[in-house]
Amino acid sequence: MVAQAVESVVPTDAYAGDAVFELHRGGKIEVSSSIHVQDADDLSKAYTPGVARVCTAIAAEPALARRYTWTSNVVAVVTDGTAVLGLGDIGPVASLPVMEGKALLFKEFGGVDSVPIALDCTDVDEFVETVARMAPSFGGINLEDISAPRCFEIERRLKERLDIPVFHDDQHGTAVVVLAALRNALRVTGKEIEDIRVVISGAGAAGVACARILLQAGVGDLAVVDSKGVLHEDRPDLNPVKLSLARDTNTGGLSGRLADALAGADLFLGVSGGTVPEEAVASMADDAIIFALANPNPEVHPDLAHRHAAVVATGRSDFPNQINNVLAFPGIFRGAFDASATRITEGMKLAAADALAGLISPADLRADYIIPSPFDPRVAPAVADAVAAAAAAEGVTRD
Amino acid sequence: MVAQAVESVVPTDAYAGDAVFELHRGGKIEVSSSIHVQDADDLSKAYTPGVARVCTAIAAEPALARRYTWTSNVVAVVTDGTAVLGLGDIGPVASLPVMEGKALLFKEFGGVDSVPIALDCTDVDEFVETVARMAPSFGGINLEDISAPRCFEIERRLKERLDIPVFHDDQHGTAVVVLAALRNALRVTGKEIEDIRVVISGAGAAGVACARILLQAGVGDLAVVDSKGVLHEDRPDLNPVKLSLARDTNTGGLSGRLADALAGADLFLGVSGGTVPEEAVASMADDAIIFALANPNPEVHPDLAHRHAAVVATGRSDFPNQINNVLAFPGIFRGAFDASATRITEGMKLAAADALAGLISPADLRADYIIPSPFDPRVAPAVADAVAAAAAAEGVTRD
Repeated sequence: MVAQAVESVVPTDAYAGDAVFELHRGGKIEVSSSIHVQDADDLSKAYTPGVARVCTAIAAEPALARRYTWTSNVVAVVTDGTAVLGLGDIGPVASLPVMEGKALLFKEFGGVDSVPIALDCTDVDEFVETVARMAPSFGGINLEDISAPRCFEIERRLKERLDIPVFHDDQHGTAVVVLAALRNALRVTGKEIEDIRVVISGAGAAGVACARILLQAGVGDLAVVDSKGVLHEDRPDLNPVKLSLARDTNTGGLSGRLADALAGADLFLGVSGGTVPEEAVASMADDAIIFALANPNPEVHPDLAHRHAAVVATGRSDFPNQINNVLAFPGIFRGAFDASATRITEGMKLAAADALAGLISPADLRADYIIPSPFDPRVAPAVADAVAAAAAAEGVTRD
Repeated sequence: MVAQAVESVVPTDAYAGDAVFELHRGGKIEVSSSIHVQDADDLSKAYTPGVARVCTAIAAEPALARRYTWTSNVVAVVTDGTAVLGLGDIGPVASLPVMEGKALLFKEFGGVDSVPIALDCTDVDEFVETVARMAPSFGGINLEDISAPRCFEIERRLKERLDIPVFHDDQHGTAVVVLAALRNALRVTGKEIEDIRVVISGAGAAGVACARILLQAGVGDLAVVDSKGVLHEDRPDLNPVKLSLARDTNTGGLSGRLADALAGADLFLGVSGGTVPEEAVASMADDAIIFALANPNPEVHPDLAHRHAAVVATGRSDFPNQINNVLAFPGIFRGAFDASATRITEGMKLAAADALAGLISPADLRADYIIPSPFDPRVAPAVADAVAAAAAAEGVTRD
């Protein structure tokens, strides 16, 4: 009945027969019952009057909510629709298929329950307040597709305010998978992370987080380039996040454009879109590594990249070495929940990257196999175990 | 792994072995995938890059969200935990088992997906803003366990602001089932609704909504009693909701206490708790009807009620004629969704009550069988069909 009724609302059906739209019909997730209510006894236990005793116990000892409600396993996937995929600010309603997709992947890959929450508010204060108010209903917050630089402040303030994991996947999911891929690319090329020179194209959510995790992981020489050129402290046009990043990077004192920065670089990481001229690619160091992650059009096409680089990765599933966030976020939240973690730390993210990289044995490691497939069943358990162990080691768990 | 990890958080487990707590362990609901992601082709359809086309289509034609996301079938069950069952203001976290229970019943009885949202805010403005901001994520809002009189303003403002069904179940779910039971009780006693005198004990969410639906249904003589006595216009202590109700009721000009009002009454409806003295019960009209809904202790115990009344109903499952909201809310939202209704009108509620009453045939009707069992499989479909038909007749649908 639902499908028929919905049918009548939008008379045109320009998408009938389109396999992608057919798969989305009625949505990609549903809520299901963990228990079934078949008689008055079931009803009296799951609902009134029995439920009152559970409520009373939680009122006396709030930590019991994690044992006797679904909150110990449920993430809110929260967006305002301001930076959806490469589509930009399409608003909350149009962002919903992505948020549902995320919820689907959380469940399929990590066994994590999640709920899409697309908010009709773009003010940072309002966004933070709204999420904080709904936080008692969830065990974690996954921020998604929020435009930079707003996303940085939103995440920082929610992390300060809440005692549950808060994770902006566009930043940290990408950063974890990039670091994992880089570790294996360095094994292939025989370079050490401390010795390489890195150029990141893009200073949005992904660019900033990748820069930060690479610095954490030991990269010493790293420059970030935005649409105006290399970030350096003397640029008057930088927002506070970019200025802070400028101070912590570019020890080589570069200025100029991306093409200038690339000369002699060991790693090009593209998280920006646009196209890098072949001359600039050719100017990179020997055994260069190119991660060109823009979708659907990589900053450097793999065919071109292979002429000048030893290892190439993209964001696309139709080339080898796909850098895909689904390798990280389901296992990261799975591990955080398994450990009853109150936050997701830098150490937990580094552990996730190492676990992901470690799934490829030295014997299997090749230039076109530096990162596991999203369908490798070892991925989420390995990430989860590493994240849970790191949480326990750092003491950011509830016990 | 989850259960073990959670286990370690709260070392004491005073509730181990308790059947109600065991049933609640890990929660009562989960999110499940409507489709499975088994290979790169599935992933490219359900998530990137395929999902981008669905987002783009919705951005151009927002109504498509109802066809291609789960919003056409998902309700937010929203509370602030200020009036949970008979437990009072126990806060959002402790209210979660009730909200999950509601979500469970929505699915089990109505096939409606729903998500518990317990808000950490009690200010009316903040509550309304928060729900309005998250509304793009849902197809309906079920308000739950919010204290009176705040609940009335919250519901009114959300109904004005949103173009999706907003329904405060403690008010209207109760009112619908009460009216259904009354229609059949009147058939048993041979009285007409226009002729009866009604006394309602309780002027909170349920009392106010029951009074309103009974007036709509044709009751002419109705008095509402709160803890201070009968509501009448000259009382200086009434909040605006009670004052409005006083103006629309008590045509007999009663004052005094409950016991005074009951003399000669045809229906006593208790939605307040407390105990009615037997003398007052005995003073009711011949063939009186007693609906004593307080849980777990009815205002008039059924054994006592039967000495003086022809028909008796309670809120308890261990006596005949249980007045249980689960008879209404799953079918009401099912019907609203089936019809793509933008609101739930008075007419839709009256239709729900009539459909519920109509499930008991004249041949089956008895004093101890005036309302169907929650486990009667005809209930939700009958309510849903009646609600959908009323929505279509009133033109409050999207097409």
